Amino acid sequence: MNPESKSTTKSLPLEGVIVLEFCQYLSGPSAGLRLADLGARVIKIENPGKGDLCRILPIKNRWVENDSLLFHTINRNKESYTANLKSEHELAEIKRLIGKADVLMHNFRPGVMEKLGLGYEAVKALNAGLVYAEISGYGAEGPWARKPGQDLLLQAMSGLMFASGNQKDGPMPFGLAIGDMLCGAQAVQGILAALVHRKRTGKGSRISLSLLESLLDMQFEVLTTYFASGKRPLRSAVNSAHPLLGAPYGIYATKDSHLAIAMIPIAPLREALGCGELERFDQSMVFTHRDAIKQVLADFLKSATTDHWLAKLREKGLWAMDVKDWKQLKATQGYRQSNLEQIIKLTNGQSIKTNRCPIRIDGEVLLSDRPAPTLGEHTASIKQEFN
Amino acid sequence: MNPESKSTTKSLPLEGVIVLEFCQYLSGPSAGLRLADLGARVIKIENPGKGDLCRILPIKNRWVENDSLLFHTINRNKESYTANLKSEHELAEIKRLIGKADVLMHNFRPGVMEKLGLGYEAVKALNAGLVYAEISGYGAEGPWARKPGQDLLLQAMSGLMFASGNQKDGPMPFGLAIGDMLCGAQAVQGILAALVHRKRTGKGSRISLSLLESLLDMQFEVLTTYFASGKRPLRSAVNSAHPLLGAPYGIYATKDSHLAIAMIPIAPLREALGCGELERFDQSMVFTHRDAIKQVLADFLKSATTDHWLAKLREKGLWAMDVKDWKQLKATQGYRQSNLEQIIKLTNGQSIKTNRCPIRIDGEVLLSDRPAPTLGEHTASIKQEFN
Repeated sequence: MNPESKSTTKSLPLEGVIVLEFCQYLSGPSAGLRLADLGARVIKIENPGKGDLCRILPIKNRWVENDSLLFHTINRNKESYTANLKSEHELAEIKRLIGKADVLMHNFRPGVMEKLGLGYEAVKALNAGLVYAEISGYGAEGPWARKPGQDLLLQAMSGLMFASGNQKDGPMPFGLAIGDMLCGAQAVQGILAALVHRKRTGKGSRISLSLLESLLDMQFEVLTTYFASGKRPLRSAVNSAHPLLGAPYGIYATKDSHLAIAMIPIAPLREALGCGELERFDQSMVFTHRDAIKQVLADFLKSATTDHWLAKLREKGLWAMDVKDWKQLKATQGYRQSNLEQIIKLTNGQSIKTNRCPIRIDGEVLLSDRPAPTLGEHTASIKQEFN
Repeated sequence: MNPESKSTTKSLPLEGVIVLEFCQYLSGPSAGLRLADLGARVIKIENPGKGDLCRILPIKNRWVENDSLLFHTINRNKESYTANLKSEHELAEIKRLIGKADVLMHNFRPGVMEKLGLGYEAVKALNAGLVYAEISGYGAEGPWARKPGQDLLLQAMSGLMFASGNQKDGPMPFGLAIGDMLCGAQAVQGILAALVHRKRTGKGSRISLSLLESLLDMQFEVLTTYFASGKRPLRSAVNSAHPLLGAPYGIYATKDSHLAIAMIPIAPLREALGCGELERFDQSMVFTHRDAIKQVLADFLKSATTDHWLAKLREKGLWAMDVKDWKQLKATQGYRQSNLEQIIKLTNGQSIKTNRCPIRIDGEVLLSDRPAPTLGEHTASIKQEFN
């Protein structure tokens, strides 16, 4: 047996917690995935037609069985229950299920669940201890409530596009769905805090998140600076890596590749590298002369290899790193020792490899080899169990 | 009284939970901040000399009282207790405090807490129900355990630098400390899950996180694709916004500014914009001809303003957005209605403005006007209370 394909057998913290996930795409389902890996039983409630639309979302045209690889990645370790929520009979069955659940999550646009009769006030009457979590693009109220809550659009309107890249670059998106992922992470926080609260008081809560609030929260350091000064912290003209940090913080091209340099004071940096041109600058100038210092370094570091510079900086205990792609990272001993991957067994006998949960408990990694469910795979068994 | 400067008065979910934060800089303290905003009592345990080194970390040279504005932003709503952990007497006092705490968090390098006699096995003997959370750069074991766990260096070695920017750009850092923030968010998840577990079993747990595992987790969609194909998903040559998504997904310059376009199928996009040149392409080509399609769009969209294109796309219900900086965002009605800011009152009578917690509970935002503590501000009162 492949040692990677095992599931964790130890008792998990959320054992016994039942989560109903009325979610699709990434934000809500990524929260469900985390709860599942922490031991909750996560049941996706899906439309009997197409289900979670992520099942048919192609990424690089990669498919596994009938669903997109993306869907498998986000929805492993869950069950699927299909119900037509417009059928009175099926809705009644869903309500019985809600009566026995601990958590209900949805990421529909504001108003959709209410229209179905599954808004918080309605379901609270069925289950006073229920934790009800809702994720939207812009919150339930205000002029934007009905707008599509899509990651790139929210990045565009949240100011985030002026964090990465250099000053003269246009707006620069972050190349992953960071709003969805952060919002999902914060939904997990809110849900778990509400479960702690319920243990103390017996009462449920409604937890609300939005992509907009999550993306602003991610910018809390830079936004607070903006509130204080009224000036947007500008990206460096060259080698920018964080708009708030002075020189030399950035990524530099070398003779053969690239080098990351963190906050290193000017004097030890100059000495370690042997860069005489840096003598024009002292520590008081790392903000005022940020671009000039970075330009001197950028020109100088091209003269030798990354390994050459790394050796000189590390000899003095200064913070630097070579830039790796995944192939280079996977080839390292550190990666192999960190047990970062896991194998998911599919029902057709195939398997896929994916990341494991980043949280370790009592020194052990959390693994699960359970695949994503086929649409409606568990409807019959769940009906039998709960009705 | 300024309505923004109020603290939430309703009962908060983590009321009664005592957290000892042996943390500095961003990853651990950002977790402590979230726990505090959710109602926990968070006590920073600091060195009596300088305390959390973030107090003296300059960002854009902005200071508030004696500490950096950055420190205030991350450490508001907490208490500060100073102790020299190398003094036997003061360590004994800390141990008494640990005996009464619910959570202990630290982000020292692996081995430091053990050397102080505050490793998990040692403190578990003092408090079997304690939730002990540790954040490191690379995990407690393996060849990297003693390396500096700094955000930019971890971004550099995690493969993340090939997500943003265009294909011919070099490695592109994400311009905020995203590893620190995600790792802190996941620490909160682990801690809260462990509190739920403790309510059920009476037992504490050790929760371990690392920046490396958090940054790989953030890449789980793209990494799973890489595991399946052996090929790194490449960024677009032009207008890249997510390496896994086909055309037109990206940010485009217009006659006067920029426009974000999400996943819109080619045919309705062509019709809405009136872009005849797109007739050369159909939906089956959005991956194979991604760069060519994007280049056609990039050239075409320069001919009119963002508002012009937005009106045409929105008329058809297609997903697009103008790109805003913070000034433009703050000027919107939606921002004003969302109650996104809060005022922190400082002990010297000044106040600062910052973001609030992104989680809403029962429809209410969580506000706290408590400032960051001065170094050791609460040492005496906490000693009196707990000894």
